[in-house]
Amino acid sequence: MSKGEATKQAVLDQAVEVASRLGLSGLTIGTLATQVELSKSGLFAHFRSKEQLQLQVLAHARETFTAQVIRPALSAPRGEKRLRTVFEGWLVCGRESAPGCLFVSAATEFDDQPGAVRDQLVRDHQDLMESLALMFRTGISEGQFREDADPEQFAHDLHGVMLQYFHALRLIRDPAAERRTRRAFDTLLDNVRA
Amino acid sequence: MSKGEATKQAVLDQAVEVASRLGLSGLTIGTLATQVELSKSGLFAHFRSKEQLQLQVLAHARETFTAQVIRPALSAPRGEKRLRTVFEGWLVCGRESAPGCLFVSAATEFDDQPGAVRDQLVRDHQDLMESLALMFRTGISEGQFREDADPEQFAHDLHGVMLQYFHALRLIRDPAAERRTRRAFDTLLDNVRA
Repeated sequence: MSKGEATKQAVLDQAVEVASRLGLSGLTIGTLATQVELSKSGLFAHFRSKEQLQLQVLAHARETFTAQVIRPALSAPRGEKRLRTVFEGWLVCGRESAPGCLFVSAATEFDDQPGAVRDQLVRDHQDLMESLALMFRTGISEGQFREDADPEQFAHDLHGVMLQYFHALRLIRDPAAERRTRRAFDTLLDNVRA
Repeated sequence: MSKGEATKQAVLDQAVEVASRLGLSGLTIGTLATQVELSKSGLFAHFRSKEQLQLQVLAHARETFTAQVIRPALSAPRGEKRLRTVFEGWLVCGRESAPGCLFVSAATEFDDQPGAVRDQLVRDHQDLMESLALMFRTGISEGQFREDADPEQFAHDLHGVMLQYFHALRLIRDPAAERRTRRAFDTLLDNVRA
């Protein structure tokens, strides 16, 4: 990685953190320049516009989420173990805030704002739902889950369990957040077991 | 209702709509004045500060949500029918956007921002969860749900089902959003039936 590229990655790490806290709309090239102690003109050279900055921040958050949550699961055994690996990674990503949290807040921030950021968020969530449904299908193939279980319904339900985890953990600071989330996840699996 | 009070209610209706679209932080006395065609100084006389405006908008949204979703359920028969009445009202409130949606977006917008707005949001969500748990308990008393079912877990899980409904409906515009949400709700009830 060149020095320029390393700087850019470090700036994006900071930008994901700021966007998770203040929202993607709260992230400007000006406030980011102050935070990372680089010149505004230097950051403009990298990102060109606020929308480009938002899109690159989302791409960076997606890359981190994939590396921390999705990729480890793909080397786990097919079916339930693979889904549990995703689930455990997702829990960690909630506890340590950013970048998974950014997708949760950006979703409600941009759902009413048409444009490139919204379009990218929709694609990212669709990709995630398809990955989860695909992992679930490996559990049907392996005979762990019922033949008539619905992989898209499972992905939908699991995403709801995780949204509620982020909500209970980050807004309510509910000490039972993780325990209730584990119970909800176990119940989802109990409902589809062969 | 006096003319002044009627004007204030109409302004708050508009304010809830703006806040649902742009976020509570995107709502300013200035932009609201333009929207409702009243003078900025007139609105300042009503609301005094941005934070007071945000708190009154939340109070107004809570009042509407209670009238549309909670109160009708309290006159429905105890147990499952009462919970189904809440669920149907909540679905409508998602389809017609605002003011239920405001609570979903405000939760992720303010979870990292300490202050009076965050404190109010936490109390509102705790009240909601307690209402749901209490409704669930009437179903245990009536012998519809298992004695050992956990009312707080049910409230937690139902809230997750609704967060995912708002997500699938409003961000993804998933045509299956309502169907999947109904199925998730039915499964929640199937799991606790006596």
